[in-house]
Amino acid sequence: MDYQTYQLGDFKLVSGETLPNAFIAYKTIGDPSRPAIIYPSWFSGAISDNEWLVGEDKTLSPRRYFIIIPAMFGNGQSSSPSNTPRRPFPAVTIRDNVAAQHRLVTQHLGVRHARCVLGWSMGACQAYQWVTQFPGFADCAVPFCGAARTSVHNQVFLEGAKSALLAAKGASAAGLKAFGRVYAGWGFSQAFYRQRVYETALRYRSLEDFMQGFWEKWALSKDPENLLLMLAAWQAADCSDQEPYNKDFELAMRSIKARMLVLPGREDLYFTPEDSEYEVQCMSEGVGKCIPFPSIWGHWAGGPGLNPEDLEWLDNKLRVFLEDETTSMSQVSVTK
Amino acid sequence: MDYQTYQLGDFKLVSGETLPNAFIAYKTIGDPSRPAIIYPSWFSGAISDNEWLVGEDKTLSPRRYFIIIPAMFGNGQSSSPSNTPRRPFPAVTIRDNVAAQHRLVTQHLGVRHARCVLGWSMGACQAYQWVTQFPGFADCAVPFCGAARTSVHNQVFLEGAKSALLAAKGASAAGLKAFGRVYAGWGFSQAFYRQRVYETALRYRSLEDFMQGFWEKWALSKDPENLLLMLAAWQAADCSDQEPYNKDFELAMRSIKARMLVLPGREDLYFTPEDSEYEVQCMSEGVGKCIPFPSIWGHWAGGPGLNPEDLEWLDNKLRVFLEDETTSMSQVSVTK
Repeated sequence: MDYQTYQLGDFKLVSGETLPNAFIAYKTIGDPSRPAIIYPSWFSGAISDNEWLVGEDKTLSPRRYFIIIPAMFGNGQSSSPSNTPRRPFPAVTIRDNVAAQHRLVTQHLGVRHARCVLGWSMGACQAYQWVTQFPGFADCAVPFCGAARTSVHNQVFLEGAKSALLAAKGASAAGLKAFGRVYAGWGFSQAFYRQRVYETALRYRSLEDFMQGFWEKWALSKDPENLLLMLAAWQAADCSDQEPYNKDFELAMRSIKARMLVLPGREDLYFTPEDSEYEVQCMSEGVGKCIPFPSIWGHWAGGPGLNPEDLEWLDNKLRVFLEDETTSMSQVSVTK
Repeated sequence: MDYQTYQLGDFKLVSGETLPNAFIAYKTIGDPSRPAIIYPSWFSGAISDNEWLVGEDKTLSPRRYFIIIPAMFGNGQSSSPSNTPRRPFPAVTIRDNVAAQHRLVTQHLGVRHARCVLGWSMGACQAYQWVTQFPGFADCAVPFCGAARTSVHNQVFLEGAKSALLAAKGASAAGLKAFGRVYAGWGFSQAFYRQRVYETALRYRSLEDFMQGFWEKWALSKDPENLLLMLAAWQAADCSDQEPYNKDFELAMRSIKARMLVLPGREDLYFTPEDSEYEVQCMSEGVGKCIPFPSIWGHWAGGPGLNPEDLEWLDNKLRVFLEDETTSMSQVSVTK
């Protein structure tokens, strides 16, 4: 097992319910004396599914940073329906996830300040949650292909995916395969399919081969109840749904102090660039910057390193931003 | 019953199979001596679901035109799994549909020339099929929110919808509801949901109310096997997949002689404006024109009259085009 777990005990959730004997899985990479980077996992992703962006040749180098990868509740490594007998498994929000991560980071790892919180997709939602729930904890954040609040259309996409998962709850392979096929049209853009990039870049022989070899294989490797737990958190994600914002989304955005580099996928069909641009527009002057991935890989532009060009683009954006950040923010930290 | 049927006998399909005792349902509106308009039905649509665009106050007025609305195989009115005992029901293509419509129009209704073929969505696919399968039969065509060939991404969207339908084949309401919810994210655009038009214009109380009252209600009113038959025809749609084009798509587009007004939805997520623009680019000089609906109603911009603004826009575009057509094409007809 290439990760550790931290016992949270009986963990009180936002809903008022308790997750008994809760635990959070995590992995750290690098020297704890370096500036901390918090890099939460994404919908369905394991801890190892974040490592494509970490390495000695990358911006997120263990020689420069102390990289902490916490796993979401429901990912199968942290407390999840698949590793916990309790039924019904209580609903868990993004806020619950970040509260647990904050305990892990501060109480267990002894980190009192982070250089950056970043993540892809639901990882990006958690980055937004971090900077609104614990203002001042991180100098900056880089949410890529994600959102501060799940848009209505995104919720609708998830309704379709959820329907297939509900059919899969009795351990039906057909339901999970349906989930994979429903997801397939959303994950990559129209142009990605138009140009048959699944053949040229990903080396699938045909569309059906891609459906089976990529999408169904991904879906069949997952536990439907785990996915449903994370999906509900995704649908409900809204970092303004907490004190002191009380669902005033514009106030939440305006209150962000961490410097934000927001990177949507230009052709992302559910976390759209329009939504990201609105988030940055709402931020205070000079706080945020929005730059879309110049990619036809849709949501997967920010995904687990499938496209070398997108990975290089992201890595460069991170490098420039974090180096700039190092200069400007270390002074800020000194004066705190 | 507000429509008639025409017996096709044992109808030979492109696949080589025969549809025994086949029949095609249709309705005509207006005087048969007027110029004919052929207006095929769409995926899941009944004949009456086309009538929103017809009326004495509209461009498609029965005082000016002889309007023929033929129903697709599988729509539940023409030969369909729901009204035919034969199993398995043989696969039927767009080309089969248009061949049957041609027999209805020429042999039964005695129409030898049409002013225009038009349609929404799969109706648009049939309009493309008409002008390539029977060149010269129609002066012009207006495919709106459809395509001459189903794009790969569109096929992928349908894979998800199909998965839900396959789960519904045992008459499971859950499967049909899942089909409706999968469709929901595709039918309208991100901006439609962002601006909550389902509340302001369509008067649903909430997103869940819209999911149930619009999407699930629509899905539950259909027969899953009928939908699967039409869906397969949709996925395979390609008007270049016939003699003399033999899958040379650019040749098929270049060969079109009918004047074409191609109207995609600007925010249509599966019949995208990019694909429509490419079709028109491939046509010979002066043959085609592409104008996107300036609408956030996504695919439903061209849909059954839900949005009065889109309906007015479409009706005006049709009026200008058909009046222009009347002048220029009647002369062409004379010289033929």
